[in-house]
Amino acid sequence: MASTQTPNDPPKPQPEEEGPTKSALKKAAKAAEKEKKAAEKAAKQQEMAQQKAAEEVDYAEEFYGPLPLNQSQSRPRRTRDEIVSLSGRAGEPVLFRARVQASRAQGNKMVFLNLRQRTDSVQALLVVAPEKVSKQMVKWAASLADESIVLVEGVAEKTQEPIKSATVSDVEVHISKIYLIAGLETRLPFTVEDANRPETLADSAEVQYNRVLLETRLNNRVIDLRTQTNQAVFTLQGAIGDFFRQYLSEHGFLEIHSPKLQGAATESGASVFKVGYFKGSAFLAQSPQLAKQMAIAADFERVYEIGPVFRAEDSNTHRHMTEFIGLDLEMTIEEHYHEVMEMLDGMLKHIFSGLRDKYKKEIQTVQKQFPADDFKWREGPEGTLVLSFKEAVDILVEDGVPREDLDDFSTENEKRLGRLVKAKYDTDYYIIDKFPMALRPFYTMPDPEDPTLSNSYDFFMRGEEILSGAQRIHEPKLLAEKMLSKGVDPDSMKSYVDAFRMGCPPHGGGGIGLERVLMLFLKLNNIRRASLFPRDPKRLEP
Amino acid sequence: MASTQTPNDPPKPQPEEEGPTKSALKKAAKAAEKEKKAAEKAAKQQEMAQQKAAEEVDYAEEFYGPLPLNQSQSRPRRTRDEIVSLSGRAGEPVLFRARVQASRAQGNKMVFLNLRQRTDSVQALLVVAPEKVSKQMVKWAASLADESIVLVEGVAEKTQEPIKSATVSDVEVHISKIYLIAGLETRLPFTVEDANRPETLADSAEVQYNRVLLETRLNNRVIDLRTQTNQAVFTLQGAIGDFFRQYLSEHGFLEIHSPKLQGAATESGASVFKVGYFKGSAFLAQSPQLAKQMAIAADFERVYEIGPVFRAEDSNTHRHMTEFIGLDLEMTIEEHYHEVMEMLDGMLKHIFSGLRDKYKKEIQTVQKQFPADDFKWREGPEGTLVLSFKEAVDILVEDGVPREDLDDFSTENEKRLGRLVKAKYDTDYYIIDKFPMALRPFYTMPDPEDPTLSNSYDFFMRGEEILSGAQRIHEPKLLAEKMLSKGVDPDSMKSYVDAFRMGCPPHGGGGIGLERVLMLFLKLNNIRRASLFPRDPKRLEP
Repeated sequence: MASTQTPNDPPKPQPEEEGPTKSALKKAAKAAEKEKKAAEKAAKQQEMAQQKAAEEVDYAEEFYGPLPLNQSQSRPRRTRDEIVSLSGRAGEPVLFRARVQASRAQGNKMVFLNLRQRTDSVQALLVVAPEKVSKQMVKWAASLADESIVLVEGVAEKTQEPIKSATVSDVEVHISKIYLIAGLETRLPFTVEDANRPETLADSAEVQYNRVLLETRLNNRVIDLRTQTNQAVFTLQGAIGDFFRQYLSEHGFLEIHSPKLQGAATESGASVFKVGYFKGSAFLAQSPQLAKQMAIAADFERVYEIGPVFRAEDSNTHRHMTEFIGLDLEMTIEEHYHEVMEMLDGMLKHIFSGLRDKYKKEIQTVQKQFPADDFKWREGPEGTLVLSFKEAVDILVEDGVPREDLDDFSTENEKRLGRLVKAKYDTDYYIIDKFPMALRPFYTMPDPEDPTLSNSYDFFMRGEEILSGAQRIHEPKLLAEKMLSKGVDPDSMKSYVDAFRMGCPPHGGGGIGLERVLMLFLKLNNIRRASLFPRDPKRLEP
Repeated sequence: MASTQTPNDPPKPQPEEEGPTKSALKKAAKAAEKEKKAAEKAAKQQEMAQQKAAEEVDYAEEFYGPLPLNQSQSRPRRTRDEIVSLSGRAGEPVLFRARVQASRAQGNKMVFLNLRQRTDSVQALLVVAPEKVSKQMVKWAASLADESIVLVEGVAEKTQEPIKSATVSDVEVHISKIYLIAGLETRLPFTVEDANRPETLADSAEVQYNRVLLETRLNNRVIDLRTQTNQAVFTLQGAIGDFFRQYLSEHGFLEIHSPKLQGAATESGASVFKVGYFKGSAFLAQSPQLAKQMAIAADFERVYEIGPVFRAEDSNTHRHMTEFIGLDLEMTIEEHYHEVMEMLDGMLKHIFSGLRDKYKKEIQTVQKQFPADDFKWREGPEGTLVLSFKEAVDILVEDGVPREDLDDFSTENEKRLGRLVKAKYDTDYYIIDKFPMALRPFYTMPDPEDPTLSNSYDFFMRGEEILSGAQRIHEPKLLAEKMLSKGVDPDSMKSYVDAFRMGCPPHGGGGIGLERVLMLFLKLNNIRRASLFPRDPKRLEP
């Protein structure tokens, strides 16, 4: 790429003149003067540049101190290391940027620094050494605020004993130069160390004292997100999205993007956010349901979407947010809606095994703060446990729940069912199929034998719903009939109903809450922990 | 997966009894009767099942007609074919679902059908044959409405001459059975064939007559999307997302999801949509700018996001929408912001070469309707053309544009520059670096030498901007100063400014409009064609 900076060009040499006249001489004198001035100017510029360079050298020779604000003044192209790769590199020079997680001075001649990058940390030390490390330098390093960002140069040295306080245990960094890249201009609301403590030790008085409440964490989310736990949690969130796409892409799905701004409040009017739209109004999509069905009517065959969905429900439970990420898919059916159910099942198992096999380190990092049994699912030829709604009811009735309470499952009964299923079948993951039609939205296809039932299913993890899906009605007359029976005027959704009037293949799909999968796989106990900047009825910041 | 249906188990054999008593005999008689009843019931059920199966066979023996509504009644697990894979399969039996693109009867004994799946089509024919294909069957097939969905069984047969009207040219399907899966219940607003015609032939009267206007297309988007062109366009849209993620994932980026609902109208208040949020208000994010910078302050190092961004600009140009998909990234800088610019450049070139090398078929399909020169970019060691803003101004001035008109580039001057650059450098893709500070938002890092310039860049395709980015200010005092100078109160964005007060590394990034990249790569001329269901000030439907 071409550089945009203009170097200090030396003054151009003047062309020699032949046979001078008086005026020519005058001209020449003038030119010589001009030349002299230019040369002086150039010399001065050169001198300044040298001085500046010398200052830079001097500065660098100081071995420590705050760096000037990085405005991309220069580009020496020196390779920076990652802390995670320092292990096994004893004896090698290293250079890296890191956070100061903590510092501890020993007398006035030595300081230990715990340096952190994301989920990794290394111990570093600075010891007074003649001509290299001054007492002042040690004092300065010891005074660095926690969470300062520093640039460190030194040598990785083998440690006598494994270091337990850092993730890199076999080497420590002997610092020769240390500079401050960014300091702190305010007090931290809590330390990252405190925010990273195990949640289980809540009974101990010391931990209670240091414990950081969820509300405090979320109010100061940028600091909270710096914990090793949260660095791992969001690496795992990214991984779920990757495995979702990977599986679907391999099965012929196309990624689509449907609009979140809609002209009418669809699906269920009560829980829709209203938006001022120029001189009129719009509404935020509660799901890509209508758009992805229209994509099927538009011949895309198999589609998925990853995007925000909005729910204006004034609910402040551990598992509801007003905005979350929906992993949605829709596909044509050739013969039977279990084709869709099996696709969703295969995709989820791909996510589970992918996380377990490729993100062991991150899962273990999270488990240090949130201890939990590893998530269990059936991987053998017997396949995923599928219960009919009726069978699920029977299991709960057998356990003492009154049958009349089970027209629908309360959150409590869902969790109870999860415990019963875990005890009986040893799985944290199962499907409930054949929900009563009365519990499902108008677009759900009724069962062919029993019209009170439907071709629909929910998927569960640790006794909580993570996915809801069904075969949809593709026949326009039946669709209009079901809309009317649920109090929806087909004319209010004309584009949607027209898509079926113009010929639509049988199809089905499902929608997954990304944060729920993440929360339940890791047992984080609150969905807000699985969202970067969560939104609920009481929270719109940060 | 375990079946949820309970099979008709045969009655369990009773255990043999030894030394019967009277009451035991009575019991046994009762049991025998019960057993008999159960056996009768089972026999009756079996009979019914057989009868039903026989009916299904009878039905299938009719060879044609409407299928009953697919409510997942059965699952014979017969393999369905894809039209694209029929080529080279002469002599083989085939079974597939497809749209009837067009039908043409020849007398009353033969009908030709053009059958379509997404971008692929095949010719099929049905000829009267004793015991197999009746006259009635041919008549019925000839009467199928265009865009009906049918299930076809037959044999692929080699054709005498290549078939030009279908994408599969070496075989045609000789139909033995044909069923209607979904018919049409309304008139089509236009035919898919008309909607697929080349846009260039606009001068011919015939094409003018059949031409489908963009407005009509968008009002009936589900039909419009069925064209082979649009099937290809949205396959390419999906591919751009895939290449974006692939490149960034390989370079250590993490996917994040930031909230679209925000507590305050940030960045630029004028063009923000307001949302009713319970008893208060929220605003729709104009970009993930603040969130992704906070993710950097939260140590995520390299992040990207693919998601909707909302712009309340009352602008109805060919390149503006009120909602579009932003491909955003943000990364830490070690030495110089050109690290970011080069990352963005590498990523875009990965997209361009990926599309060209792996989606030739789709690009050619689109070019049939939208003829355009292939998109050109520099791939050699000289690298992407980077002009400074000043250099770009000079090129325009040299071409006759008054310098005083060039404080900023108008859309017209941008396009003019694109043409001049293409003529001079033979590239459709280039970068303009070092924009004047006055043209950039408050969070842009000023140039270290000249504070009237900034460390910022725009990327262009065919003379239109597709990406805007910069180094950001990570120093809280300078940030607050610049906010004030641009009329933004730092206290109104406290969470954001606090993120920098608690230590943030130098960083930069950029945001790309997905639809713009797609539109300009393919030269679709209007951004709405690059969006599944576009939104502008006048359009919220479908």
